[in-house]
Parts: sequence; C-alpha cells; structure tokens
Amino acid sequence: MTANAFERLKERLAEVADLKNAATLLAWDERVMMPPAGAAARADALATVGRLAQERFVSTDVERLLDELRGLEETSAYDSFEASLIRVTRRDFQKASRVPPELVGELRRAAILGLSAWGPAKAESNFEALRPSLEKNLELLQRYIECFDKPEERYDVLLDNYEPGMKTAEVRETFAGLKEELPSLIRAIGEGDDVDASFLSGEFDIDRQRELSLEIVRRFGYTDEEWTLHPTPHAFMSTPGAGDIRLTTTFRPDDLSSLFGTMHEFGHGVYEWGVDRSLARTPLGTGVSLGVHESQSRLWENLVGRSRSFWRFFYPRLQQTFVRQLGAIDDETFYRAVNKVRPSFIRIDADEVTYNMHVILRFEVEQELIDGRLSLADLPAAWNAHMEEYLGVEVPDDTRGVLQDMHWAGGSFGYFPTYSLGNVISVQIWDRLQEDLGDLDERF
Amino acid sequence: MTANAFERLKERLAEVADLKNAATLLAWDERVMMPPAGAAARADALATVGRLAQERFVSTDVERLLDELRGLEETSAYDSFEASLIRVTRRDFQKASRVPPELVGELRRAAILGLSAWGPAKAESNFEALRPSLEKNLELLQRYIECFDKPEERYDVLLDNYEPGMKTAEVRETFAGLKEELPSLIRAIGEGDDVDASFLSGEFDIDRQRELSLEIVRRFGYTDEEWTLHPTPHAFMSTPGAGDIRLTTTFRPDDLSSLFGTMHEFGHGVYEWGVDRSLARTPLGTGVSLGVHESQSRLWENLVGRSRSFWRFFYPRLQQTFVRQLGAIDDETFYRAVNKVRPSFIRIDADEVTYNMHVILRFEVEQELIDGRLSLADLPAAWNAHMEEYLGVEVPDDTRGVLQDMHWAGGSFGYFPTYSLGNVISVQIWDRLQEDLGDLDERF
Repeated sequence: MTANAFERLKERLAEVADLKNAATLLAWDERVMMPPAGAAARADALATVGRLAQERFVSTDVERLLDELRGLEETSAYDSFEASLIRVTRRDFQKASRVPPELVGELRRAAILGLSAWGPAKAESNFEALRPSLEKNLELLQRYIECFDKPEERYDVLLDNYEPGMKTAEVRETFAGLKEELPSLIRAIGEGDDVDASFLSGEFDIDRQRELSLEIVRRFGYTDEEWTLHPTPHAFMSTPGAGDIRLTTTFRPDDLSSLFGTMHEFGHGVYEWGVDRSLARTPLGTGVSLGVHESQSRLWENLVGRSRSFWRFFYPRLQQTFVRQLGAIDDETFYRAVNKVRPSFIRIDADEVTYNMHVILRFEVEQELIDGRLSLADLPAAWNAHMEEYLGVEVPDDTRGVLQDMHWAGGSFGYFPTYSLGNVISVQIWDRLQEDLGDLDERF
Repeated sequence: MTANAFERLKERLAEVADLKNAATLLAWDERVMMPPAGAAARADALATVGRLAQERFVSTDVERLLDELRGLEETSAYDSFEASLIRVTRRDFQKASRVPPELVGELRRAAILGLSAWGPAKAESNFEALRPSLEKNLELLQRYIECFDKPEERYDVLLDNYEPGMKTAEVRETFAGLKEELPSLIRAIGEGDDVDASFLSGEFDIDRQRELSLEIVRRFGYTDEEWTLHPTPHAFMSTPGAGDIRLTTTFRPDDLSSLFGTMHEFGHGVYEWGVDRSLARTPLGTGVSLGVHESQSRLWENLVGRSRSFWRFFYPRLQQTFVRQLGAIDDETFYRAVNKVRPSFIRIDADEVTYNMHVILRFEVEQELIDGRLSLADLPAAWNAHMEEYLGVEVPDDTRGVLQDMHWAGGSFGYFPTYSLGNVISVQIWDRLQEDLGDLDERF
C-alpha cells in the first residue's frame, strides 16, 4: 500500500519533471535559437507549461500521498532515496501550497514586464524608467513573504528560494568575515599594482575563441554525445533533460573573457552531469542550491582556469592561435594578467577579490529595500555611496551602476548572495581536494 | 452566456495549442539540436506533454462547451470565425473521443519503436527485422479503425487523419487519371532522352550550398526576424509558434539537391507564415490538410524552383559560386538537367513525372495491407513487382525498395497519397495564378 503510494508519488513527480524539462527547453531555445518574432507565442507556451507543472504538483493528490508516506519517511534512513524524496517533496509542496496561484501568475508576469523594461532603461541609464517595475516586483514580493509564517527576518523567505534552509543571519556572518578582510586586501594589492593586462584587450577572432573554448572543455570532459555549446548575449547553462547539458558563452571580439566564461558554465554543467541517472525525473535530480552550483562554476573558472599550472599546459596552444596579440607574452605574464585585481564598476567583469564586495553591496541593499529602510527613489544614491565606500570607485552613470544586472528587474531578490557563497564554498572544496589528492597543480 | 462559453472554449483551445507548440519545439530540437544522450529524457517529456494536450482537449468540459455552442454555430455564417472554430473543434473532438487513451498511447509507443527499428533494418536491407514492428502498427491501426462507424472503405479512416473529409474513392479517381497518362509519358520521355545531368553530381561545398539556399529563400520572403534554417539528415519544416518558422535542409556534399529541398521546405513554411495571426492558438491556425500543404512546397520547389525564368535570373550566381563544376554549363543546359525525367528507385529523389508513380504504388499497397488482401510477408515481392510494372525498374534490394521510407515504420498509413494530391493541387493553383496575374515567367 505504502509502496504503491510511493510509486504513485514518483509517477506524479516524473510528470512534473517532464513539464519542467519542456519549460527549460522552451526558455533555452528562446535565448539561443528562436527568431525574435516568435516571442509572443513562446511566452504563451511557457506560461501554460509552467502553470500546468504547478497545478499537477500543488494538488490534493500529492497532499494525500505525502500524508500516506509519513510512515515510510520515518522508517527509512535519512539519506535513503525514499526518505530524501519524500522530505524534499514535502518541503517543496509546503512552500508552493502557501502561495495562491494568482500571486504566482502575477509574479511571473511582473518579472517578464520588468525584464523587458530593464534593457532600454539600462541602455539609456534611466533608472526612473525601471522604477515602476521594481515597485511592482517589491510589492508582490512583500505579499509573497506574507504567505509564510513570520520569519526571523523577512529576507529569510526570499533567500530560502535560492539557498534552501539558509538564514540571512548566517550569510551576514559569513560576509562579515569577507568584509573585514577584503577592503584592506584590495587596497594593499592596488598600492603594489604592477601587473600589465593591457594585452588582454585587442582583436580576437570569435571563431578561434569558440574553437579554443571547446578544446578546453573537451579536456575537462565535454563530449558531443551529451553536451552542446552555443553563443548567446547573456551566458548561462541549461539542462533540458538528463544527458543533455547545454553550455552557452558570450564571445566578445575584443577580449578573451569567453574562455573563462565557458569554463564557468562548464562547472555548472558538470555538476548537473554528475547527478546519478536514477534520480532523473525526481526533484532530487538537480543541484541542491544556487550557492553549491556556483561553487562548481567558480571552481572551474577560477581555481582551475586561472591557475598557473593550467596555463602552463594550455598557454602554448592559445599563444599559437593568437600569435600577433600574444607572441611576445610569456605564460607567467599571462597568468598574472588573468588574475589581476582592480576595483571596477561591473560585477560580472570583476576579479575574484573585488567580486565579493559587489555582492555584499547588493545583499545589504536588498535587505534595506525589503525591510523598508530604503526607498527605491534613494536606491541609485545608496548604490553609488556603497561603491565608493567598498571599492573606492565613483560610479559614472546608472548603466554602470544600479542598472547593470537584470536580477531585480526580473523579481529575483535574495539571489545575489549565492554568488559569493559559491566563491567561498569553491575554495573550501578546493582545499579539501588538495588534502585528499595531494598537489593538484603538479598533477595538471 | 453563449459568448462566455465561446470565450471559455477559446481559452481551453489556446492551452491545448500552447502544449502542442511545446511538443513541436521538443521534436524540432530533438532532430536538430539535442545531443544524442538526451533522447530518453526527451521521449518522456514528449509523451507527457502530448498526453496532457490530449487530456485537456478530450474532456467533459470541452464536450459541454461544444453542446452549449450549437446555437452560436448554427446562427453564425459558415465561414465566420465562430462557426468555423466550433465546427472544426467539434470534428476534432468527435474523432479524438472515439479513441481510448490507452490505444493512443500504444500507437505512439509502437511508432517510436518502429522508427528506431527502421534505421538499422534499412541500412542492412533486412525487411524481416522491421516486420514485427509493421505487424504491430497494422494491428493497432485495425483497432483504431474499429473505433469509428463502419466506413465505406477501411482506408478512409486513416486517410481522414491527413486529408480531412476526403474519401479513398476520390483519391483513386484522381490517381486513375495519372495512372493512365504517366506510364506512356515516362516511356516516351525515356525513348527520346538526351538530357545530360552528369554535372549535377560532383563536389559542392556544403557551406556554399547553405549560403545559396539562404540567398534564394531570402528573395522569396525569408527574414531573420521570423525564420531559421538548419541542416538535418531528414529535412522538414516546423512551426513551434506563430512568427517562428523553422526550415531544415539536407546538405549533401556531392550534389545540389539542397537548393530544391530548401525551396520545398520554404513552401511549407510560407503557407504557415501566411496564416492570419488572429487564428493563432486555435485549431484554425494551421494548414487545412497535408495535400494542400504539399501543394505549397511542390509549387515553390518545382513550379518556381525548376522554372526556366527562375534560373535565368539566379543561375549566374550559382555558376559563379561553383565555377569549376558549372563554368562550362549554360543556363538552358542547367534548366534541362534539373528537369530531367528518369525512372529510379527512390521516391524523394524522383523527378516530377515519375514521382507520382512512386506514390500510387504505396497508395495501392497500403489499401491491400489494410483490407487484408496482402500479407506483410509478401510485401517486398509485391513492391518490387509494382516497381517493375509502373517504372520499368528492377529493385536491387529492400534498402532501395520497401524500406526506403520511414512512414510505415512510424505507423503513418494513409499519408502517402497527400504527396501526389499536393502535386496535382500545385499545378491547379499555378494555372489559376497564371490566369489571374498574367505570364509569371515574364515577371520573375
């Protein structure tokens, strides 16, 4: 009877997973393949598939099955497939059933409208053009927070969507350590700055960059049997199904950032690739949190991809491809250049050290907005003041300031901290790897 | 009240259309983009989305709405949006509700298994390896036919899935005319055959073929805003949403067939492209039948794409791209070569004249199989005898004989006649165009 209930739960979850896979492909295709005129039909298809996935999950059937399965959960080992599946499903169900479908729909619509307003607002450095969308997103998120039992901090509810179980206070504590060390470290590096990275800007043929990117990730484990790599304006990784790992990369004609971007997305991809196939079509068949996901991408991008030993091996190949630009540069100089630390305006272009200050700024500002201590009207000024304080730079316009990222326009508040949590976790994993495997640098 | 019911019907149909669009994209992506290891997850996603589309349509809600809307249908003009939508929906509903969901599932599964058996069977010219799949498909189709009121001919039920409302007897009559004229025409052409087409075989760079294909369809109306073109092993056209027309073409390194293939798929695409946007997300927002669809593809491929006037305009461009191969060939010689008539084994490579005999053969054999007058064991021999009789060729093996097409393996019986109906309709439309617009050749 219970075994039967468990099978029925798995069947329903498989159906929901299929719909989510379909939605993932619809979204991947929209960003990578779809001709622009298909946007309206695609928005409809995505809305319908997303709504059905929600309806099939938040249903009395699932509620009843979860009730029936309490016994099985309690009598199974915590880490067993059965207990884990029931526990995670119950958690997801309890969260999802708290939020009325109308609010889910309103949040989705507001996010789409916000994202379409963000592009032009950013291009024109016009914060006021985006403000109504942000107001709407925040108003809906406040209603979303109200759906749950009173949390210790309101921000906890949002953070939980990206980093399940983590509390704002824990993030604050972790970041306090960074905030104590980083500013003085950044200043110290800045004072002794003698690293020349000027040769990293120049003309770099995009087709060659793509070939090199593929060559690198093939050495990491990419195969044509299970992976794809396509160009996009905003890079991301996507898995529309088990055994189907899709990397995308932004190729710029005037720098080599695509190589690091591809390694970054490979890290996301290989994390999903490593999921046991027996977990496919269940909520266990994906990463556990955005922070852990990011730890994998940062590990491959920074700890492998910016290491001396990696470039000792691969630099000759790069140099021979771009002889004119790099012929006179040796591997040590290149290694130092790709690790250069310098405060800048843009998070996604920031080096490993200053990056976390960009994130801490957003984490703090988000809490002030959610708690009502900062009004949106004052957001650009607050942003700029923090940038001056944390990184010593004067933001010239909102394009390079508060409008640079799309997250808030898309209603994603509570997401940013996961980037720095990923940075922190990646180094912890790396240290452990070093301990367990000996000197990795030697082994490359 | 009725207006309300009509709105509710439209809403439900929009939901079903969204799911079908999602399924269309899942299928397009599988054939064009997906890494091979994604196949299992994709089959699951397609099955779930397909089943939900079916469940949302064949439901008591829709049945009740259709009942409520009888009055509106009867009081609206036959060609009005309201009457047309209700009529077509009622027709689709009545057909779909006759077939038990289990049988739909079995048909789908058998088709997938048959298609996966077809590839290897064809490669090894091993009909017996495919026979069990064909047995299964035919057995299920017999059960499918039994779901409906006794038809005049059992084949009618299958034909109706591709050519709604058409009867086997009507097709037989149309084909009788072709069957009377074509064999003697083919013989007469064969006797006077002096057309040299040898220069159409050779080395033709695939990237150049792709550029030329795009250049041609751009002149026909293809734009990057609404269309895409990708290479595939088996060419097809797909529309995963309004404003999103996807052509695929098979590019072979040793001939120029891709140019005609691309024009063919363009014809399919431009037919869907021409659908009024107000019909999107309704069952009226697509082609009316496969025959009419094929008339558009054959029109662009043959009546435009093999015309003297088209090549008078475009041949210099082609010649200049492939100077080595075509430098010594003038446009008239090229025009005659691409219109050369010669009996051959393979339908998809056949010329305009012999093509229809390939289809008539299949149409006749299908009826014999469905009516139980021919057993599958005797199918290859029957095929070969017909080929000898209709085209005067001796089939050397089943790869180039009964195994050449995938339709039967995928359970598509009743589909083939639409190809020749399309041929016939295309010429009728062309004649009418000539009458209405004057000499089209002059105007090219």
